[in-house]
Amino acid sequence: MPETLTLDAFETAAEKVKEVTQKTELIESPYFSQATGNRIFFKPENMQRTGAYKVRGAYYKISTLSPEELGHGLIAASAGNHAQGVAYAAARAGVKSVVVMPTTTPLIKVERTKGYGAEVILHGDVYDESCDFAMQLAEERGYTFIHPFNDPVVATGQGTIAMEIVQELPLVDTILVPVGGGGLACGVATFAKLYNPKIRVIGVEPEGAPSLTAALEAGHPVRLPSANTIADGTAVLEVGDAVFPYLKDNLDDVITVPDEELIVAFLDMVENHKMIVENSGLLTVAALKHLPAENRRIAAILSGGNMDVITMSSVVQHGLIQRDRIFTISVLLPDRPGMLLGVAGIIAEQNGNVIKLEHNQFVSTNRNAAVELRVTIEAYGTDHKNQIVAALEAGGFKPSIVQTSL
Amino acid sequence: MPETLTLDAFETAAEKVKEVTQKTELIESPYFSQATGNRIFFKPENMQRTGAYKVRGAYYKISTLSPEELGHGLIAASAGNHAQGVAYAAARAGVKSVVVMPTTTPLIKVERTKGYGAEVILHGDVYDESCDFAMQLAEERGYTFIHPFNDPVVATGQGTIAMEIVQELPLVDTILVPVGGGGLACGVATFAKLYNPKIRVIGVEPEGAPSLTAALEAGHPVRLPSANTIADGTAVLEVGDAVFPYLKDNLDDVITVPDEELIVAFLDMVENHKMIVENSGLLTVAALKHLPAENRRIAAILSGGNMDVITMSSVVQHGLIQRDRIFTISVLLPDRPGMLLGVAGIIAEQNGNVIKLEHNQFVSTNRNAAVELRVTIEAYGTDHKNQIVAALEAGGFKPSIVQTSL
Repeated sequence: MPETLTLDAFETAAEKVKEVTQKTELIESPYFSQATGNRIFFKPENMQRTGAYKVRGAYYKISTLSPEELGHGLIAASAGNHAQGVAYAAARAGVKSVVVMPTTTPLIKVERTKGYGAEVILHGDVYDESCDFAMQLAEERGYTFIHPFNDPVVATGQGTIAMEIVQELPLVDTILVPVGGGGLACGVATFAKLYNPKIRVIGVEPEGAPSLTAALEAGHPVRLPSANTIADGTAVLEVGDAVFPYLKDNLDDVITVPDEELIVAFLDMVENHKMIVENSGLLTVAALKHLPAENRRIAAILSGGNMDVITMSSVVQHGLIQRDRIFTISVLLPDRPGMLLGVAGIIAEQNGNVIKLEHNQFVSTNRNAAVELRVTIEAYGTDHKNQIVAALEAGGFKPSIVQTSL
Repeated sequence: MPETLTLDAFETAAEKVKEVTQKTELIESPYFSQATGNRIFFKPENMQRTGAYKVRGAYYKISTLSPEELGHGLIAASAGNHAQGVAYAAARAGVKSVVVMPTTTPLIKVERTKGYGAEVILHGDVYDESCDFAMQLAEERGYTFIHPFNDPVVATGQGTIAMEIVQELPLVDTILVPVGGGGLACGVATFAKLYNPKIRVIGVEPEGAPSLTAALEAGHPVRLPSANTIADGTAVLEVGDAVFPYLKDNLDDVITVPDEELIVAFLDMVENHKMIVENSGLLTVAALKHLPAENRRIAAILSGGNMDVITMSSVVQHGLIQRDRIFTISVLLPDRPGMLLGVAGIIAEQNGNVIKLEHNQFVSTNRNAAVELRVTIEAYGTDHKNQIVAALEAGGFKPSIVQTSL
């Protein structure tokens, strides 16, 4: 058993993972600094090889295994980033890997994992079934099982992120880290406290899967009855028992974040930093607004960027609607020439940008109010929206806000 | 007049711009390296402050102006990145700035430019009118006019990108640079050739606005009758006469790229590098596939990332459809129980993912073929699409491909 979760082990791991990682330099954020009253820096592990930090733990784990353990190859179970991390790390180390994925895994993730060189087995309806099957295969065929989080060696590999943060930003005051099963948070918090106890480390978990909050209340890991969050990467029912003691001792605080805040955070990152961050990675971004304005240096770990593009489109649209950057009004018009022009004129005057228009003649049998006009408008935000609606009312129309569908 | 476009000037500029720039380290791309047979590195200026490289030229220009020239403030005309670059650079230098934007400028860009501290004047239907007005104001009020590209000082500032590329990747063989008005390409190509004539520099311009190709053919800048491209940042009708001689002497080649290739490149960057790159910045990404596989080190400059999110959603959808990652079939079904189940079963068996389903009972008056079923399916790509269609045909259905609307 290799040394784990000590400063020496973190140093060894940090050197090791450099063989395969992309350097992910901190990005200072003028936008979030201004918005929060702190000095915000992002650690962009969404830009890491395979699109997430997972490759660190997997590659470091491999480096600690004996030729015998590596001989038959590795096995892992995952529907997401761990699958790609193990596949990539194994390929770079020249080792065979097998990944068991739930049958419901999105096509793209299956293809990516195969693309990195792993053999993919689709088995089980949910992660737990895939995991059981992977452990069964490990026993039958001699594969070495790589746990996604409940392994101090893997956690040591993930902790190299914190080492990089302090190298680049020695005066960091606070590190925000997402928590799912707890492997990443264990590595980061343990390194930080061993290195400099003055560094605060705060775990952030989704409100719909607060497994760490539950464990801290109970004093030991407990199993949530269910998880309900769009942050799929951190939708873990129970934190790992091997990492929980470290979380308990080394985290200063835990923040929970509701899904709605993740949608806003996604847009903020796209617009201000031109980056795709997946929902679990956005936990720390959303958490920034939960901290008091104290001009502290805060490093937020963006754990991954693997969001499929169809989901992305939908998140963007929800976000725009949520921020009143897009809204739809319905106006009943008398079926007379020039009425449409009247509405359009007022919207244009107010600098609203029409992005969709529907004109429905079958709303009413009353010839004097026969047409429903639905206009979807792009605006700056709530104030601008209210201004456009007020101008329409002043112009004699009776607009009502209806649900936007794009 | 300061020294421009010499190695000494580039060195001075490189030191100067560091005061305000985010470090944009090269990102090696395993995906594009494998796809192209070269070693691909991206210079991510989309991650630069203000979302584009423009801040470099603007800030260096400011550093060369006298207190008198700065006294009344700066003025620029732009609908895009130059506006934000000038506004940000001026604010950082503590100088007043005025930006004239066409009245048609998207709301967000106006807000952003104001947010960086500039006074924004909306004037003119197109860029040329805004520009004329800005020059008029400069004369009337004593502002110093900052040209977006046709200024050797500005071009020297942009050329600092090439300095950074060779510092990080000394063995770089080829640099790909987008060409609009030619300021960026002038700085990059001139630095590269002065520094090491063995470095190849290739300009990339949109097929719908090939102002450099036209100028090279004529031997001098000529004005295109019109521009038609989604790459708005490089949709310039005429390259600058002050920079053209440098482009002519220092560029090794020019590649033109059609818009369709930009849409594919956008998705490639999102999926593989989790980054938003605007269409003009994607020119160099698309150009990668135009180069022979020779295992060369190629640095592609991603000039900017300012794409509004509504456009982004639309580009994503077009890209998915173009790559057969999303397609829609129409099937006429006899109106009998179980038919829908039959179609759904075959699609599921083939691992297609149904993302939208429309069931229309009013297609036919014939009771035996009364229902049209439209199914929008997510697939891996063309092979998978064909396989799903073939399976439906083998199952006795007659699917036809129809246009997808999401």
